[in-house]
Amino acid sequence: MHKNRLEAFSDGVMAILITIMILEIKVPEGHELADLKPLTAPLLAYLMSFIFLGIYWHNHHHLMQAVKRVNGKILWANSHLLFWLSLVPVGTLWMGESHFATTPTAIYGVMLCGAGFAYFLLTRSLVAHHGDDSHLAKALGSDIKGKASLLIYLAAIGLAFVHPYIAVALYLAVEVMWLVPDARIEKILLSGSE
Amino acid sequence: MHKNRLEAFSDGVMAILITIMILEIKVPEGHELADLKPLTAPLLAYLMSFIFLGIYWHNHHHLMQAVKRVNGKILWANSHLLFWLSLVPVGTLWMGESHFATTPTAIYGVMLCGAGFAYFLLTRSLVAHHGDDSHLAKALGSDIKGKASLLIYLAAIGLAFVHPYIAVALYLAVEVMWLVPDARIEKILLSGSE
Amino acid sequence: MHKNRLEAFSDGVMAILITIMILEIKVPEGHELADLKPLTAPLLAYLMSFIFLGIYWHNHHHLMQAVKRVNGKILWANSHLLFWLSLVPVGTLWMGESHFATTPTAIYGVMLCGAGFAYFLLTRSLVAHHGDDSHLAKALGSDIKGKASLLIYLAAIGLAFVHPYIAVALYLAVEVMWLVPDARIEKILLSGSE
Amino acid sequence: MHKNRLEAFSDGVMAILITIMILEIKVPEGHELADLKPLTAPLLAYLMSFIFLGIYWHNHHHLMQAVKRVNGKILWANSHLLFWLSLVPVGTLWMGESHFATTPTAIYGVMLCGAGFAYFLLTRSLVAHHGDDSHLAKALGSDIKGKASLLIYLAAIGLAFVHPYIAVALYLAVEVMWLVPDARIEKILLSGSE
Repeated sequence: MHKNRLEAFSDGVMAILITIMILEIKVPEGHELADLKPLTAPLLAYLMSFIFLGIYWHNHHHLMQAVKRVNGKILWANSHLLFWLSLVPVGTLWMGESHFATTPTAIYGVMLCGAGFAYFLLTRSLVAHHGDDSHLAKALGSDIKGKASLLIYLAAIGLAFVHPYIAVALYLAVEVMWLVPDARIEKILLSGSE
Repeated sequence: MHKNRLEAFSDGVMAILITIMILEIKVPEGHELADLKPLTAPLLAYLMSFIFLGIYWHNHHHLMQAVKRVNGKILWANSHLLFWLSLVPVGTLWMGESHFATTPTAIYGVMLCGAGFAYFLLTRSLVAHHGDDSHLAKALGSDIKGKASLLIYLAAIGLAFVHPYIAVALYLAVEVMWLVPDARIEKILLSGSE
Repeated sequence: MHKNRLEAFSDGVMAILITIMILEIKVPEGHELADLKPLTAPLLAYLMSFIFLGIYWHNHHHLMQAVKRVNGKILWANSHLLFWLSLVPVGTLWMGESHFATTPTAIYGVMLCGAGFAYFLLTRSLVAHHGDDSHLAKALGSDIKGKASLLIYLAAIGLAFVHPYIAVALYLAVEVMWLVPDARIEKILLSGSE
Repeated sequence: MHKNRLEAFSDGVMAILITIMILEIKVPEGHELADLKPLTAPLLAYLMSFIFLGIYWHNHHHLMQAVKRVNGKILWANSHLLFWLSLVPVGTLWMGESHFATTPTAIYGVMLCGAGFAYFLLTRSLVAHHGDDSHLAKALGSDIKGKASLLIYLAAIGLAFVHPYIAVALYLAVEVMWLVPDARIEKILLSGSE
């Protein structure tokens, strides 16, 4: 079974998700600069989700480059990930419209946890199919970043009930952690494709 | 005629359908956990349709791997399938918002019947084009699962008028039937691509 | 310049257009079969537009198979076609919600005219780039069907003011004309790819 | 790292953006020709944004043809561009519904500036990765058009406060500048692929 259509389908779903979120933002009724003010929270939430989906697309891209073949279980592990990601637009809208109220901000973390855990399961099913000695398994390594993200999301869900801004800060911290270039991973991947 | 663009177009349509369904879910107006409660039925309906569309994508993926060439009739048989699938988001929303009321739940079954029958017609037009001795015809076999699904949908439509939950249970049963890995089919397909 | 991305982009846009039309259909508020009745006209309009977009995708697919190379002018001729096609969802909704009232039905014909003429311009720019002796020019021939469609659309726009159902009948006639398999064209295309 | 998935993802996002804008246009409630009148400004705004997104797609297509390889930084520079482009539907709707009022028209220019600057950063990161002597660097040249566009957008934002139609005229001027075929660039690209 080839990985091409899996990649194409995932790219399609992620491209649509990242794009339709903007449809949820209500255009202001007035035509003055002040009318944009209520959009601040929705736009910040949109930007945060845009980056999260971008990170997932980016990581998925990396991951699939090391993949040689897929099976039915992997296709479903991938669909499971896409399911969690598909909830992001609704969760983003709820959090944004509530101006980062406690419950929506905590629920947003639950969604991120779901997506992060689904991604972890996807990597497990890929390693199971390729073997522990595979290039893929080595490139993934112990996946510290992935596990740390899950722990931070869990902490953020709890701390949202102290103050939702703590949760938001933790979500942003995860984004920064992934955006900082990780030269080591690219090197391993490159050495493998040689 | 090449099958690549048929695959790409079908992937595109299915990726969009699976994704836009979430747009139909209304964000709750309040910001408490209790405000999520009315979303339970729509989210369950969404999850069910997400899995149905995933199964169609998965089966379409499998089917197309055994396809060597397509003609005009096959393109239209494929469009016919996509038409029925395109009704899924509206049917899902109606069933979800009605909290699985009788008529919407039965109509959902009519949609599934339409899609299942269109898939059957697509496989027939593919076999007609490839020949009864083709690898494709062998891989499809007697298509017990496909025919069983259609019968279960028909039963579900009738039984929805006894109690809609019976229909929902039958829809879920069909999903489980398809999700259980069918190692035999993968083996035949693999042996063919060798 | 390669035609692949042009195909991919056009497929993407057409897949999205064919899919988002369904988003415009309002889910009925009640949960009885009778509540589906106001959907009849919108669903019929949707089905008609689904087939029109399917025909465009189908013809575009055929056309691009005979194309060897593209230039900037062709890219813009293609975008021009996509622009007219992008109006189809709104025109369909207006016609459907009006239950095929005179003006919306006539305007629908104007949109079809625009798309048909844009398609004609696209074929002209392709022939100009490939030469009058090219396989492409031969495959297109005198394009009787395309020209006949434009004339029928023009007639339909006028006759919509006699009774809109005449226009609808003419739109359907054009669809039937394109759906009837045209073995001759496939033969020429096949002979060319040999 | 291969550029294919970057192209496919960008094409997907741009195809979706160009298409969903039409979803934002409200279908008129009446069924007479006069009821279309309030749609004039939204449709003009839509047409303008359709052309802007078409230009970006076109330029992106050109740019990527000269690209040999991508890295993480380039993927994010590309996502940054897509973020700005993703704001276009909302900005278009606001400007259109306001019938080109001052603030929405100026904000539209801010969006165009953001996208233009993001495109500039993308070309910089590509040149940094390919080297100043690369075919890519030569094809880009001094990018007069890109820089001129940014300056015109800045002027338009300011002049929108004199009269918004001046800004609209300047946006259209930028579009014309890009639509006029630039035979020189195609020649350099062609000479490079030989």
